[in-house]
Amino acid sequence: MKKHNFSAGPAILPAEVIQEAAQGVLDLNGDGLSILELSHRGKAITAIFDEAEALMRELLSLPADYDIIFCTGGASTQFVLAPMNLLNEDETAAYVNTGTWASKAIEAASMYGNVNVLASSKATNFDHIPDFEVPNDVKYLHLTSNNTIFGTQIHTYPTTNVPIVCDMSSDFLSRPIEVEKFGLIYAGAQKNVGPSGVTVVIVRKDMLGTVRRQLPLMFDYRTFIKEKSMYNTPPVFPVYVMMLTLRWLKKLGGLAAMHQYNLEKAAILYDEMDSNPLFKGTVAEKDRSLMNVCFVMHDASLEPEFMKFAVSQGCVDIKGHRSVGGFRASIYNAMPKESVQFLADLMRQFAVQRG
Amino acid sequence: MKKHNFSAGPAILPAEVIQEAAQGVLDLNGDGLSILELSHRGKAITAIFDEAEALMRELLSLPADYDIIFCTGGASTQFVLAPMNLLNEDETAAYVNTGTWASKAIEAASMYGNVNVLASSKATNFDHIPDFEVPNDVKYLHLTSNNTIFGTQIHTYPTTNVPIVCDMSSDFLSRPIEVEKFGLIYAGAQKNVGPSGVTVVIVRKDMLGTVRRQLPLMFDYRTFIKEKSMYNTPPVFPVYVMMLTLRWLKKLGGLAAMHQYNLEKAAILYDEMDSNPLFKGTVAEKDRSLMNVCFVMHDASLEPEFMKFAVSQGCVDIKGHRSVGGFRASIYNAMPKESVQFLADLMRQFAVQRG
Repeated sequence: MKKHNFSAGPAILPAEVIQEAAQGVLDLNGDGLSILELSHRGKAITAIFDEAEALMRELLSLPADYDIIFCTGGASTQFVLAPMNLLNEDETAAYVNTGTWASKAIEAASMYGNVNVLASSKATNFDHIPDFEVPNDVKYLHLTSNNTIFGTQIHTYPTTNVPIVCDMSSDFLSRPIEVEKFGLIYAGAQKNVGPSGVTVVIVRKDMLGTVRRQLPLMFDYRTFIKEKSMYNTPPVFPVYVMMLTLRWLKKLGGLAAMHQYNLEKAAILYDEMDSNPLFKGTVAEKDRSLMNVCFVMHDASLEPEFMKFAVSQGCVDIKGHRSVGGFRASIYNAMPKESVQFLADLMRQFAVQRG
Repeated sequence: MKKHNFSAGPAILPAEVIQEAAQGVLDLNGDGLSILELSHRGKAITAIFDEAEALMRELLSLPADYDIIFCTGGASTQFVLAPMNLLNEDETAAYVNTGTWASKAIEAASMYGNVNVLASSKATNFDHIPDFEVPNDVKYLHLTSNNTIFGTQIHTYPTTNVPIVCDMSSDFLSRPIEVEKFGLIYAGAQKNVGPSGVTVVIVRKDMLGTVRRQLPLMFDYRTFIKEKSMYNTPPVFPVYVMMLTLRWLKKLGGLAAMHQYNLEKAAILYDEMDSNPLFKGTVAEKDRSLMNVCFVMHDASLEPEFMKFAVSQGCVDIKGHRSVGGFRASIYNAMPKESVQFLADLMRQFAVQRG
């Protein structure tokens, strides 16, 4: 039976990327050597890193004063490294608490400077993006662009002179962004741009070099910039699969085309849950995520039955996070519209059967 | 032409592991899903992590009071995390400077406590492992078991009450060790146990919880222990390939059998360079590495010619590191004896032709 993989991450990748990745494992360049056994210093691998960076620059129309780093440790490591690299102990950064990951980012930043939490939607289980005003006197404003667990997404970034530091782990390269608003962007690859094991950091040059604390070389963004992400042995295969995914994204038409496709996919599910008598969404309409569609049933006692039905039809990982309950369909870039429609049809079919 | 891959790392992997890894990318468990797109919280992936840990425990005969962590960032990150987790600012750790990586470990540790460098072979370009006495009053003794760049290896670990903290990146699981001597072992996987992108840390429970500084959760070994290396999204595919490599290693007979094979392989090259009139080794005989065999030519002007010859015959990455020059053949676990013999034969053949 065909599987429809709605995993929140690591998540579905384009079928052609998976084929190419497997071929790279067997024999990257036709000389019998696997990508897994090649020196990161050799031409075959540095060419992959260069192409990954060039594609990312092109897709984002990234200005020259931004550097791109490929590293490891996920967004969770960046919760620490961002304030460590950007914030002095006597300075203040503004954070907005929109969920589990934002909370962890706030906790980590508090070790390195003053944290001004501008707003939080915790009281209503993070079911919306709270309003906030950006003070002028903060070093940066930290935002979480998309909240994987709760299914909310920032659809308009504030216009401010304060540089935005943004955890884009779960919607990176899923839509065009005004990149000039951002001083630092970080994202684990395992939602929209690759497998787990590589983290992307994009940083504007003027953000660095202002902290007084001594930084270990491995925790200093400048080390990675200077050494083109090869100060130490990088995660070669994850970067390779990311590069293949970026090629696919470019071929598809880039971020504007991807965004249009993501809008259409999300609409299928949100329209279904709004019209279906058994289901309802869990977040404020204006903040609904295009990436993670969270929904529950009006009668929660029916949820196990729908879960069983959906799984029996080939749906994978549609269980909601324990913080929210119900269901979550993660429909990142690589998720085909057909699979989204398939799930919506199951919801409809289930309602008809129960009606 | 058959390639013989002597890369220092990422390095050659067993052929059967590469085949299985490629299959996992295409379809891990016969349901059409790639290992690259599966949630790390699902049974398929947690089973892989559990098996990797169980195999490592079995291969090392690891006592129950040791924990195993799978993380990222390589040994370079551990240069920082080891002292950050183990050493208070008013305490002293002993380090032995046996090369580039040991020097970096010393530099990083100096940020967290007092570092007593017991000995260094820097004055002779790290061509041997220096003698040293272990003081009783240090928190730990840091050693680098094998020096990838210089081709030296510690063949006997000191007997001391001081726990040894050891960077085993380039000879991890290549031979049996008396694991009870060690308080902490760390190793990037990309030499003997897998591809790049995963780092192994093995730590004795009583080593932790003695530092007073506040540790960010992502930099605290206890977080990884408590969450079974899944506090955040782990590098799934690198861990999978490592698990496959550990299966291979077990099937081969474990560490004693592997060590015997590695001794035989190294002997082929060292015997050749000792008897061949054109070549000579670069390090003290007693400290010769079984993993990285470094050699030069008596007449350095012949080196480009031999390099050209070896490459034309299919040898990959035998150029010595720029710190040493000449040649380096890295012959980790997965390197077949046939390839080692092939290189030795080329050396012999070259000498005959020139003789």
